[in-house]
Amino acid sequence: MADKTKRGSKFSRLLRKRVPILSWMPSYSTDKGISDLIAGVTVGLTVMPQSLAYATLAGLEPQFGLYSAFIGCLVYIVFGSCKDITIGPTALMSLMTYQQVYGRNSDFAVLLCFLTGCVQILMGILHLGVLIDFISIPVTVGFTSATSVIIACSQLKGLLGLEFTSAGFLDTLQKVYNHIGETRLEDTTLGIVCISILILLRKMKEANLDHLKLTKNQKTALKRFLWIVSTSRNALVVIVSSIIGYMYYNESERTSIVILTGKVKSGLPDLKPPPFTTNLNGINLSFSDMCTELGSSILLVPIIGVLGNVAIAKAFSSGDSVDATQELYTIGLANIAGSFLSSYPVTGSFSRSAVNHASGVQTPFGGFYTGALIILALSLLTPYFNYIPKASLAAVIICAVIYMIEYEVIKPMWQSSRTDLIPTFATFVMCLIFGVEYGILFGVFINIIILLYTSARPVVHVEKSQSSSGHEYLLIQPGNNIYFPAVDFVRLNVCRIAIKQGYSKLPVVIDCRYIQGADFTAAKGIYSLISEFNKRSQPIYFLNPSPNILNVFKGVCFDAFKSVSSQQELDHVLANISSTSTEPCELKEVKTVNGVCEIESKGNTDAASEVPLLEDSLKPQIVKTS
Amino acid sequence: MADKTKRGSKFSRLLRKRVPILSWMPSYSTDKGISDLIAGVTVGLTVMPQSLAYATLAGLEPQFGLYSAFIGCLVYIVFGSCKDITIGPTALMSLMTYQQVYGRNSDFAVLLCFLTGCVQILMGILHLGVLIDFISIPVTVGFTSATSVIIACSQLKGLLGLEFTSAGFLDTLQKVYNHIGETRLEDTTLGIVCISILILLRKMKEANLDHLKLTKNQKTALKRFLWIVSTSRNALVVIVSSIIGYMYYNESERTSIVILTGKVKSGLPDLKPPPFTTNLNGINLSFSDMCTELGSSILLVPIIGVLGNVAIAKAFSSGDSVDATQELYTIGLANIAGSFLSSYPVTGSFSRSAVNHASGVQTPFGGFYTGALIILALSLLTPYFNYIPKASLAAVIICAVIYMIEYEVIKPMWQSSRTDLIPTFATFVMCLIFGVEYGILFGVFINIIILLYTSARPVVHVEKSQSSSGHEYLLIQPGNNIYFPAVDFVRLNVCRIAIKQGYSKLPVVIDCRYIQGADFTAAKGIYSLISEFNKRSQPIYFLNPSPNILNVFKGVCFDAFKSVSSQQELDHVLANISSTSTEPCELKEVKTVNGVCEIESKGNTDAASEVPLLEDSLKPQIVKTS
Repeated sequence: MADKTKRGSKFSRLLRKRVPILSWMPSYSTDKGISDLIAGVTVGLTVMPQSLAYATLAGLEPQFGLYSAFIGCLVYIVFGSCKDITIGPTALMSLMTYQQVYGRNSDFAVLLCFLTGCVQILMGILHLGVLIDFISIPVTVGFTSATSVIIACSQLKGLLGLEFTSAGFLDTLQKVYNHIGETRLEDTTLGIVCISILILLRKMKEANLDHLKLTKNQKTALKRFLWIVSTSRNALVVIVSSIIGYMYYNESERTSIVILTGKVKSGLPDLKPPPFTTNLNGINLSFSDMCTELGSSILLVPIIGVLGNVAIAKAFSSGDSVDATQELYTIGLANIAGSFLSSYPVTGSFSRSAVNHASGVQTPFGGFYTGALIILALSLLTPYFNYIPKASLAAVIICAVIYMIEYEVIKPMWQSSRTDLIPTFATFVMCLIFGVEYGILFGVFINIIILLYTSARPVVHVEKSQSSSGHEYLLIQPGNNIYFPAVDFVRLNVCRIAIKQGYSKLPVVIDCRYIQGADFTAAKGIYSLISEFNKRSQPIYFLNPSPNILNVFKGVCFDAFKSVSSQQELDHVLANISSTSTEPCELKEVKTVNGVCEIESKGNTDAASEVPLLEDSLKPQIVKTS
Repeated sequence: MADKTKRGSKFSRLLRKRVPILSWMPSYSTDKGISDLIAGVTVGLTVMPQSLAYATLAGLEPQFGLYSAFIGCLVYIVFGSCKDITIGPTALMSLMTYQQVYGRNSDFAVLLCFLTGCVQILMGILHLGVLIDFISIPVTVGFTSATSVIIACSQLKGLLGLEFTSAGFLDTLQKVYNHIGETRLEDTTLGIVCISILILLRKMKEANLDHLKLTKNQKTALKRFLWIVSTSRNALVVIVSSIIGYMYYNESERTSIVILTGKVKSGLPDLKPPPFTTNLNGINLSFSDMCTELGSSILLVPIIGVLGNVAIAKAFSSGDSVDATQELYTIGLANIAGSFLSSYPVTGSFSRSAVNHASGVQTPFGGFYTGALIILALSLLTPYFNYIPKASLAAVIICAVIYMIEYEVIKPMWQSSRTDLIPTFATFVMCLIFGVEYGILFGVFINIIILLYTSARPVVHVEKSQSSSGHEYLLIQPGNNIYFPAVDFVRLNVCRIAIKQGYSKLPVVIDCRYIQGADFTAAKGIYSLISEFNKRSQPIYFLNPSPNILNVFKGVCFDAFKSVSSQQELDHVLANISSTSTEPCELKEVKTVNGVCEIESKGNTDAASEVPLLEDSLKPQIVKTS
C-alpha cells in the first residue's frame, strides 16, 4: 500500500514536471491574469510585424509567418517550464528554412517543421541533449554573428527596392552589386528613416531622465510611456509606413510609391497533415526524396532550435537549473502541432521573450493572448498587411539582427583562450561562404579536433616516492582516462621515464586514481608495457585501480597485471622486493605535458628543467598487412 | 667554437637518424653480407609470386606487381630504420588500390602511389603521426578481418576459373553465385590442391621432430630443410603449377588446361613522372579531376600504409621504441620514387618481413638482393610467368589472408571491454558493405563518438574537508580537463552538490590540480558558477590553478575568480571567513560518475549510497536567436 502511494506520488511528480500547467494553474489569480494579458498583447504586437518579415526572409509568403506564430504560444501554455519564453518564428530558423525552401516550395518548410519536432522529441527520449554540449560558445558566437551578417545583407534587397532572387551570402552580395544601379530612391529613403527611428526608439528606453525637473510620479509615468513606445517600435514603424503605403496606393496598378508586401492570404491555415510528398517543377517527390533534399538540416535545425531555446530559458531562469529535457519535448510538440497548420520550424525568440519578461508576464498563460491576437490578425487584419512597405519590414529585421553580431566577445576570448578564436573565425567565415549549416558543422568539427588532440596527449605526473619502510619507488600518475588515442603516448612515456638514468632499477607504481575509464586498446598497451618491464626485470605495480579498470586490464593481461589496493599493501609489497637501487636520484618530480617532460625539484617550480620526450608517438599497433 | 662543435654533432646525429645507412654501413662485414644475401634471396623468391598475384588483385596487369616490388627495397637500404622490414606490394594496399582502379586505368594507381608518398612525407613534417593514434585496435581488427574476407572472396573467381568483373564484396558474392554454373573443374581442382599444399607446407615448419630417432645434427638439418621448403612454399607451388600449365599449353589457341596469367610485359618499367593527366573512356581528365576521383583514399591509403608499417617495425623491434617519423619519411620516399617507375602504393609486408627476419637478415642491405632478383626476373623470367595458372595465384593469396581474420581477439575483448566490440563489428560490417575505406572511416567515427561521450562527462570528486584551523569546507576536484562538452555538466553538478542540504553554507574549494586544460567555454561556465555562488553568498575558491588555467579563467572572470596557491593560503583565507555552518554533515565523500553522485563515508566504500544528479545537462549557452 505504501509502495502504491510512493509510486503514485512519483508519477504525479513526473506528471507535474512534464505538464507544468498542473503546477501553476491551481494558484492562478486575477492579478496574474491581468499581468499576463498586458504582456501577451504587447508580445502580440511585436510578433505580428516580425513574423511577416521573417516569413519573407524564409522565402515564404507572409502569411506563413503568422501561421507559425500562434501554435507555439498555445502549446507552451500547457508544457512550457519558463514563463518568459515565447515560441514562434525567429531570424535564425527563418534563415535555415530559407536554405531549404530556396528553389523549392513551401512544402519543404512545413515537412522540415514536422521532422524538427520529431527529432526534438526523439532527442528528449534518447537523452541526446548531450549533443548540444558539443556546440561550444566560440562556435555559437561565430555562428550567430555570421547569421546576423547574412540576414542583414539579405535585407539590403528590400531596403534598396531591388528585385532579384539569390542563394547564399556571396550570391546576394554579388547581385546587390550588379543591381545597385536600379536602387529606388523612395524605398531606400523609407528604409533608412525606419532604421533610424527604430534605433532611436530602442535607445529611448535607456534615456536618462534624472536631469529633468519632474516629480517622481511624473518620471515613472514618462519612463513607462517611453518603455511602451520603445517596445512597440516595430509595430509603430510598420503601421506608420503602411499608412504611407496606403496613401500613395494606386488602385489600378496595384502599386504604391514604395514596393509593398502584397496580398497576404486571409483566414486561418487549413488543419491538415504535413506534406509527405510534393510536386517540384513538375516532378513528384516521395517522402524519402524530400528527406534527401533536406539533408543534414533534419538534424541541425532541431539542435540549433533547442540550443537557442535553452539559452533563453537559462537567461530568464535567474540561476535556477533549466529542465532542458522538458524544453526539448515542448518545442518538439510545438513543431509537430505547427506542421499540421502549415508552420515552418519555430523556437523561442530571444527578443520577444525579453519583451514578455519586461512586460511583467507571470505565467506561460500570457501566450494565450499572443496566440489569440495572431488568430485575430489572420481573420481580420490581413487586408491591411497588403500595404506594408517591404523596406520597412527589411528595416525591422535589420534592426533585430545587428545587435546579434558579437564582436565584443573577441577581447575576453583573446585574454582567456586564444585557441578558441580559431573555431570562432572558422565558423564565421565558413558560414558566410558555405552557408550556416556547413559552417556550424565545420566549426564543431574544428573544435572537436582541438579537443581530441588534448585527449590524445594527457598529463602524466611523475614523482619519486618512498614507502613507509623506506623503499624508494617511482610513482607515475596518469592524470586522465586512458583511451585509444592516448595509449601509446602514455605507454612510451612511462617506458622512457622508467628507463631514465637513476630510475631504471626502481620499482614503478602506476597510480590509477584518476584513470576512471579505459578501453581494449588501453588494455593491450598496458599488457605490452608490463611485458617490456618484465623483460628487464623492473617491477611494475598498479595502485588502487577501480573495479571497472581492473576488469578491463585483467581481461587482457590476466595475472601479469599486478595491482595493489592500498598504500599499506604497496608498502608491504615493496618491502618484499630486495631493492638494490643506490644511484643518486636528484630529480624529484617529472611532469609530462604535450610531449615535453618537465622535471621539477619538489617544491621548487622555478628550478624546472626540460628533458625532451617522444615528440611523435606513432602507434605501433597490431596490424598485419599481408 | 664549442658551440660550433655542438651544433655539428647535433647535425650529424640528426643526419644519422634520418639516413640510418650512415650508422650501420661503416661496421658492415662479410659475415653480415652473407646473411643478408641469403635472406634477401629468400624474400625475393617469396615476393615474386606474391607481387604477380597482388597486382591482379589490385586490378592491374601482373608486371605492375613486379614494378612495385623492387624500388621500396632499394630505398629502404638507405633510409630504413628496422633491418627486418621489406617494402613492396601488400594485400591491403592492393585491395585499396583496386577500389581506385576498378572502372578506370593504371594511371590512377600510379598517381595514388605518388600522392601517398607526398602525404606521408607531409605527415612526417607536420608531425601528424598523431592521426594514427586515432585508429584503435578494435577498428584495426575489424578492418583487417574484413579486408581478409573481401580478398579471399575476390579470389574465388580465379580459384573456380570464372570470368567476370565485379566491384566490392557484395557484388563479387552475387556474381560468383550467378556464375557458379560455369565453374571449371580443372581450375578448381588445381586451386584446391594448391591451397591444401600451401597450408600443409605452412604447418610443416611447426612439425614436432622429437619423436624421430635422429642425431641432433640430423634434426637441425631436417628442421632447416623443412623451414626452407615451408618458406619457399609460394614459389614452389607456383613453379610446379606453371610447369603443369606449360605442359598442357596449346600454342595455337594460346590456352592451357587451366586459365593462365597471360603475357607479362618484359623489361624494366620506363623512368617517367607519374601521370598527372589521363584519358579515361575517351575523356581527358586533369590532375584535379583525378584527385576528385581518388577522393578520400588520398588520405586513407597513406595512413593505413604507415599504420601497417609501424606495426611491423614494432613487432620486430623487440621492445625498442620505433622511430615512426623516420618510417613515415622512408615509405613516403619509397612511394614517390616508385611512382616514377609505375609502382602502385607500397608499404611494409608483414609476411615477407617475417621471412626476412627468420632468414637471419642482419642489415637493411638484404633488400638489395631482393630488389636485384626482381629486376632480374623482369628482364629474364617474364616469358615464363605467362604459364602461371590463375588458380594457383588465387591459392597463394587466399592462404596469405585467411590467417589475418582475427576472430581470436573477440574473447579477450569481451572479457576486457565489451563496448569495444561495437567499433569492431561496426567496422567489419561497414567494410564488407561499403568498402574498406568507408568502413574504416565509419569505425573511427563510432570510436570517437564513444570517446567524446566520456570527455563530456568527467569524474567530479567531492570530499568534505577541514582546514588546519578547524574550518570545514567542501573540496570539489574535477578529475579532468574542462573543455566545452563537459563545462555545463561540471558546473551544474558543482552547484547541485554545493546547495545540498548541509553543504549550502560551507565554503566551496575547487581543487584545480587535475585541470590542466580549459577553454573559453569553460571560463564562461566558471564565471556563471561564481555568479551563482555570489548570489547566495556562498564563498568559492580555486585551489592551486596552473598559470595556464589561471590565465584562461581570469581572462573572463577577472577579479571574481578567487584563487589560492597553496593549502596554507587556503587555511588562512578560510580562517578569515566567519563560518556559521553548524548543521550535521554525516556524508564524507561524494563522487560523480556518469551523472550519478555516489556518496561514500570516508574510508568505507561499502556504505556507498546514491543521490540522483542531473541526468541531462543540456547546455544553456549564450545564443540569441532573434
